[in-house]
Amino acid sequence: MTVFPNPTRTTRDYQELDAAHHIHAFVDQKALNAEGPRVMVRGEGLQLWDSDGKRYLDGMSGLWCTNLGYGRQDLAAAASRQLEQLPYYNMFFHTTHPAVVELSEQLFSLLPSHYSHAVYTNSGSEANEVLIRTVRRYWQILGKPQKKVMIGRWNGYHGSTLASTALGGMGFMHEMGGMLPDFAHIGEPYWYAEGGEQSPAEFGRRCALQLEEKILELGAENVAAFVAEPFQGAGGMIFPPESYWPEIQRICRQYDVLLCADEVIGGFGRTGEWFAHQHFGFQPDTLSIAKGLTSGYVPMGGLVLSKRIAEVLVEQGGVYAHGLTYSGHPVAAAVAIANIKALRDEGVVERVKADTGPYLQQCLRQAFADHPLVGEIQGSGLVAALQFSQDKASRQRFANETELTWRCRSIGFDEGLIIRATLGRMIMAPALVATRGDIDELVAKTKLAVDRTAQEFGLL
Amino acid sequence: MTVFPNPTRTTRDYQELDAAHHIHAFVDQKALNAEGPRVMVRGEGLQLWDSDGKRYLDGMSGLWCTNLGYGRQDLAAAASRQLEQLPYYNMFFHTTHPAVVELSEQLFSLLPSHYSHAVYTNSGSEANEVLIRTVRRYWQILGKPQKKVMIGRWNGYHGSTLASTALGGMGFMHEMGGMLPDFAHIGEPYWYAEGGEQSPAEFGRRCALQLEEKILELGAENVAAFVAEPFQGAGGMIFPPESYWPEIQRICRQYDVLLCADEVIGGFGRTGEWFAHQHFGFQPDTLSIAKGLTSGYVPMGGLVLSKRIAEVLVEQGGVYAHGLTYSGHPVAAAVAIANIKALRDEGVVERVKADTGPYLQQCLRQAFADHPLVGEIQGSGLVAALQFSQDKASRQRFANETELTWRCRSIGFDEGLIIRATLGRMIMAPALVATRGDIDELVAKTKLAVDRTAQEFGLL
Repeated sequence: MTVFPNPTRTTRDYQELDAAHHIHAFVDQKALNAEGPRVMVRGEGLQLWDSDGKRYLDGMSGLWCTNLGYGRQDLAAAASRQLEQLPYYNMFFHTTHPAVVELSEQLFSLLPSHYSHAVYTNSGSEANEVLIRTVRRYWQILGKPQKKVMIGRWNGYHGSTLASTALGGMGFMHEMGGMLPDFAHIGEPYWYAEGGEQSPAEFGRRCALQLEEKILELGAENVAAFVAEPFQGAGGMIFPPESYWPEIQRICRQYDVLLCADEVIGGFGRTGEWFAHQHFGFQPDTLSIAKGLTSGYVPMGGLVLSKRIAEVLVEQGGVYAHGLTYSGHPVAAAVAIANIKALRDEGVVERVKADTGPYLQQCLRQAFADHPLVGEIQGSGLVAALQFSQDKASRQRFANETELTWRCRSIGFDEGLIIRATLGRMIMAPALVATRGDIDELVAKTKLAVDRTAQEFGLL
Repeated sequence: MTVFPNPTRTTRDYQELDAAHHIHAFVDQKALNAEGPRVMVRGEGLQLWDSDGKRYLDGMSGLWCTNLGYGRQDLAAAASRQLEQLPYYNMFFHTTHPAVVELSEQLFSLLPSHYSHAVYTNSGSEANEVLIRTVRRYWQILGKPQKKVMIGRWNGYHGSTLASTALGGMGFMHEMGGMLPDFAHIGEPYWYAEGGEQSPAEFGRRCALQLEEKILELGAENVAAFVAEPFQGAGGMIFPPESYWPEIQRICRQYDVLLCADEVIGGFGRTGEWFAHQHFGFQPDTLSIAKGLTSGYVPMGGLVLSKRIAEVLVEQGGVYAHGLTYSGHPVAAAVAIANIKALRDEGVVERVKADTGPYLQQCLRQAFADHPLVGEIQGSGLVAALQFSQDKASRQRFANETELTWRCRSIGFDEGLIIRATLGRMIMAPALVATRGDIDELVAKTKLAVDRTAQEFGLL
């Protein structure tokens, strides 16, 4: 069997082979090849080690996915057992298998009772593709085929396939592959940057009213759904003002527009609630899930449907013209079951809500409330953002904010800390099994990285 | 740990739970719930067992994916080892990991030297989404942003996301979610149904010329790529006449249109060659892969790029505006490596070419050449189709062909055989580790199912 890393290979060997054959995500490959990627070889809890033996504290749960951390024997054992018994079977041939059935049972035991059915996928991108196709199909069945426009938000993120990219609001992603018709966008509830003189509450309501304006502009009879992350993840961990979601929900209900939550990042305990929409107190019609569903150990995603939608599809829909070879994959399902059981039986989500979440938020505020570089600290549970700001009173952002945050991220890596830079914000989302000790290290190293950044740029 | 199947649960329990929560692929869920899906619980080699202890010979490799069959300890062990060492890491943060690097090395050791780079995904659908976005990006970088139309084929299959559905030619899938602009289709090279009085060679050339006509109609300056399966899989295992691919390649080269092969079904040994385009003797610019890449044990797909494309992306492309959380997933990559090594080191692909493939083709022809229901037998290696036909001389198809093939498929299931019905064709693609004994059973049971179908419909 292949041993990783191969003891006869150096870091440089790995970097050269990688450069020869592999196109990475969201990077300039030529620049990356010149620099050489770090080669990650082992993980345990929140810790990672690279091929040079350097240790990192992973403040990003991989990519907001390893909710239970690395090195979980229970998840590995669940996968192994399923691999030996039935490593694959499909749901196309009037067939099913126990793992996917029991996953559904576990999943719906976590969810409010107005959700009833799931369509399983391999990723969040696919979950949102299924969302788009399914929501349009729902309106077709109800005799309203013209209700097909999907409204997303600028700077929202819903995946990297063509339609999930169109649903998202990342302009540079639209450029690669092109925009699609029947998608529209409203602004993001980013008070720090866009709020001006308004209070957060006032700004939140005004952002929500953009949805009403957009629906009226398009005609409610043409709008299928509004899709958004409860808090914007890749867009910078932007938490909307409290006034935002109730008003959005009111508008969706008033105009019979489906309200769809992208829970790919927020789901499975991140905010201290099982799902992020519960933290914000609204009731979506669908939930797109992935990442924390399996703690990332095996790829899996899915779309959760409310009874309202599922009943129409099942009772009136006829053949559901969709399927993925690996939908409900038995190994992924077995891992997801073990993952949900561990999150629940070990009280992980409750601990995030009652202890480690508040502790992280408090430590960050103690460390950064008076920091000259930091204008705002947002977050809940084990997700947080630090907004870099040139002037706190006026909430003036740095013209070179991306340069600052990117440098901060690089210093972090050098110091053995992985946090992420997104425009003017440093963001973190450690594994939900983080102890207070892990959080102390995370905050201390983040402080070090932000301080060093401020010093380098003459801002401290 | 959860045990599957749970000994306290009956088949009916599983069916009821499944009906309560799970939307299946490509079925009428209401009808399926009334019928109750079969619950598959165990696999070994080509054999499956359901929750009632019934044994099946799997003539479809799961869903054309378990190329090494079920129960492979080497693949399970590769997954387990990686799960314990590093169950997840991403390729977004200027990072990589040994498993994905070594997978690239293995993959490109199989491929002709004009291929150089891969983008990894979780499925074939995602591979084709990446294809569409990447091909359009390639032409953008070269200063030809208007070259964005993707040409596919009617009845071709490229996935179930919105754009991969648009690229494919399944009309009922277009209806769910809608068609997209900048996609076009030409006819399929289905000589039996469409060839009329033409010889296969003449028909193959004329089908290929439809591509030239379509390019001229659209303007070559607007066409990015032609995408097709070397043989149509879900469309009915349709093998084009020998004249088809050389002419397609000539046209693509002449008009500077990229030639993209969907190898999701055909790749990794299915036809007796490593990739199906090698069987047909043409040189695509890209290969979409999935399924056989991991034998389906863990979801994985990818897009293979020729040097021509990769060099432009890497050297001139700047930031590649695409990424999936689970791209190059370490567990999937570790399984893919073990899978490729087994296919190669155990001589599996060579055996399909030299022994078991010809044996299957010969046995099918012996069993069905004179069968009153069967008008054509197509295939190569371990993939084959039986065309049902009302009249062999005129190649007249049955008006109720779907009813016939669907009944044949159901009889197969009852007899403990899994083969697939697609319009008027019964199709099979057993695991590549099939022995002559397995093939004998596959052909004998298929004969039984076809005979019983013919009897039931008064055709024998």
